[in-house]
Amino acid sequence: MPLLSPVDFLFTTLETRTQPMHVGGLFLFELPNNANEDFVSILSKQMLTAKMPPSFPFNQVLDRLINWQTDEDFEVYQHFRHIALPQPARIRELLHYVSLEHSRLLNKSNPMWECHIIEGIEPVSEGSPARFALYFKIHHSLVDGIAAMRLVKKSLSESATETMNLPVWSLITRHRSRLDAMFPKNKSWTQIVKEQLATIKPVARELSKSVTEINNPNFIHTLQAPRCILNQRITASRRLSTQSYELPRLKALAKRLSVSTNDIVLAVCAGALRNYLLQNNALPKKPLIAFVPISLRTDDSASGNQVSFVLANLATHLDDPRQRIKTISASMRNGKERFGAMTQAQVINYSAIAYSWAGINLLAGLYPKFQAFNLIISNVPGSDKPLYWNGAKLQALYPASVLLNGQAMNITLATYVDKMEFGITACDDVLPHSQVLLKLIAEEINVLESIACN
Amino acid sequence: MPLLSPVDFLFTTLETRTQPMHVGGLFLFELPNNANEDFVSILSKQMLTAKMPPSFPFNQVLDRLINWQTDEDFEVYQHFRHIALPQPARIRELLHYVSLEHSRLLNKSNPMWECHIIEGIEPVSEGSPARFALYFKIHHSLVDGIAAMRLVKKSLSESATETMNLPVWSLITRHRSRLDAMFPKNKSWTQIVKEQLATIKPVARELSKSVTEINNPNFIHTLQAPRCILNQRITASRRLSTQSYELPRLKALAKRLSVSTNDIVLAVCAGALRNYLLQNNALPKKPLIAFVPISLRTDDSASGNQVSFVLANLATHLDDPRQRIKTISASMRNGKERFGAMTQAQVINYSAIAYSWAGINLLAGLYPKFQAFNLIISNVPGSDKPLYWNGAKLQALYPASVLLNGQAMNITLATYVDKMEFGITACDDVLPHSQVLLKLIAEEINVLESIACN
Repeated sequence: MPLLSPVDFLFTTLETRTQPMHVGGLFLFELPNNANEDFVSILSKQMLTAKMPPSFPFNQVLDRLINWQTDEDFEVYQHFRHIALPQPARIRELLHYVSLEHSRLLNKSNPMWECHIIEGIEPVSEGSPARFALYFKIHHSLVDGIAAMRLVKKSLSESATETMNLPVWSLITRHRSRLDAMFPKNKSWTQIVKEQLATIKPVARELSKSVTEINNPNFIHTLQAPRCILNQRITASRRLSTQSYELPRLKALAKRLSVSTNDIVLAVCAGALRNYLLQNNALPKKPLIAFVPISLRTDDSASGNQVSFVLANLATHLDDPRQRIKTISASMRNGKERFGAMTQAQVINYSAIAYSWAGINLLAGLYPKFQAFNLIISNVPGSDKPLYWNGAKLQALYPASVLLNGQAMNITLATYVDKMEFGITACDDVLPHSQVLLKLIAEEINVLESIACN
Repeated sequence: MPLLSPVDFLFTTLETRTQPMHVGGLFLFELPNNANEDFVSILSKQMLTAKMPPSFPFNQVLDRLINWQTDEDFEVYQHFRHIALPQPARIRELLHYVSLEHSRLLNKSNPMWECHIIEGIEPVSEGSPARFALYFKIHHSLVDGIAAMRLVKKSLSESATETMNLPVWSLITRHRSRLDAMFPKNKSWTQIVKEQLATIKPVARELSKSVTEINNPNFIHTLQAPRCILNQRITASRRLSTQSYELPRLKALAKRLSVSTNDIVLAVCAGALRNYLLQNNALPKKPLIAFVPISLRTDDSASGNQVSFVLANLATHLDDPRQRIKTISASMRNGKERFGAMTQAQVINYSAIAYSWAGINLLAGLYPKFQAFNLIISNVPGSDKPLYWNGAKLQALYPASVLLNGQAMNITLATYVDKMEFGITACDDVLPHSQVLLKLIAEEINVLESIACN
């Protein structure tokens, strides 16, 4: 029974009804040509009747909020649902359903994940095959977004003809041994807690140091983010907005402007956010700060949380897109250099602390009226090869993320073949019509292209 | 913050993943003639956007499993879902969906209820209007089956033209004052617990007395039920089977055979169960014992648990249907007479104790290898007038009930206009094909009719 790591513990204890701590993935498939009417029903039945027990981490259940326990009583009914969309069944209605599901708390009495198959989605155009979707939802204490994407990817095939019979939750993952190694059996409960707490001290020192270290103009310390409408107290209401953009266009832009693709993505988000805030008469005078997670994982283990982050200056106060992208790129380079001085355990706890308001206030004793960042913009790896589920082609995949009190919007992206897939998760009650950002992102890509060509 | 009553407490603490303690109701509607395509979507939107906060008991949330607390943070997203059925969308697929939902635990972090709107169900026959359903699920600690039916009934109209704008969870109920009276504010926590425990002693005495009092052959004591395949350890898998039978036929039978309609219902179930067990080579030599709940409610309050019960001898060992119905009727009369000697509080606790194995073993210290009864057969009042939801006619209503370890089948009935609506809840893993009982019930009605005519 391994203890929860500090990050997992934080993810678990921070959870409230208005702040569910699960991540999600929406996977959109096209029915194979000449598929039978019951194609999706057969997939669904496969998942309902699979005999293989869930693998790690899908078999982990909370025990008194302190320990993970291997669950011996798997009941697929607690986790799986197969529905159709009410009419008209467009992508809009799909997102409405997924948004509501993403608003719901996972049940802590079960291993904390759910899998929904949603059928009957209209074709892209008349004559095309009908579509169906898989929405997968898993608690952030079990996996981070990167791992979640990896897990689902493992359950799909790169071949259009291969048959995959095992549900995603029964695939073998390699995380257990890693986690066991992190919490060796010959250490006592109190010893482990003591060690974990010890790593927090230097982290808190580092955070405090940030307050004074402001000589470098590109250096963003953790208390510098301006107040903004993105940073309100949230309700449980979630809206997921998704769109696919052409990856080759973004890559070409990066090359022409001599920055990384990730910098381009941040610049596109920055421009769109600037216009969104301008439209709402809510653009802060100081630049927005984005929390950009970076994976610390060195192996390909699919579960658990091993993330660190960089705080990126989005330069939303600058009108000139050229200046904006320069500032963003410089701030990213600077941020990445800062983690060399810390051990991996310290970096993990640093993330845990800085991840949320609650963390900062609780552990570092800093001021609740300052905030570390305005939103999280996260880029998780998808797949560069087309994926299939028993012959049904994966059209698109969209990540859905966690919102925290004071963090009412999250932008998570994934690459899939030649697309950059955007999933914007927002608290619909405090940031209505967040889907407008998708249009603004498309416009910003055009703006950057016109600059790069000059 | 009222304390949980002993019954509520038992319902809450007995809950495990394989033994969820919620009741449900499935309400099947026909679209009004000339209804717009978005009729159900509009209903759904009404419920999602209603401004009225939930009324008692829908606003009660558990606090440390001991107290009820009024919940101030209602989030409709946590409770409401609108879906369509996968194709083909027949009643069979509706029951499949509802069965899976009925298998899932409610989330104890929220007030414990859920409301599902399910659209796109095929018409009864070609040319008839399409159908939709409402599945309502609420924890047994908040209401019993009778109250649940009353609550939903209140949210519907007897008029085909009346518009009902309030969701079922926002209707005013009168239960709060009753519950407050039950737990007066000037009593301390420990006082209340002491008093509640005091009523349990005479109840346990009564239970123990039952073991020796066997002079009256119609008297069924609580430890007399035979072992039977209905009484196995259950899993979380539930199957709900439903059917409507003609109420006038059952009433005519009752009159001709000089018994109550309730006796006829029990006789019909008894005959069907006998044949079901014969088909499975599993008919016990001794008669099955049914636990038949009786409402103790004297007002029309819609919430809370005020049930007592009679243990009915189903005479399944008798081949002659005439003899069976005589024995059943006599055993029901006898059972009803036994509660005169007890106070209402004692009767309520008697129910609580006898309701479940866990209760018996825990509180009365009796033998775990004996069982009190083989199954629950419960008759909850429905409505004798047709009901409408914004013009959509309620075609049928079916109750879905709780199963307990050792109680793998439950039969609950409700009357609706001229129909007797049967809802059979069974653990599908240990009692597969329980839906066959519906056919056997229809056959048994024919058998009794042929007897009554001779």
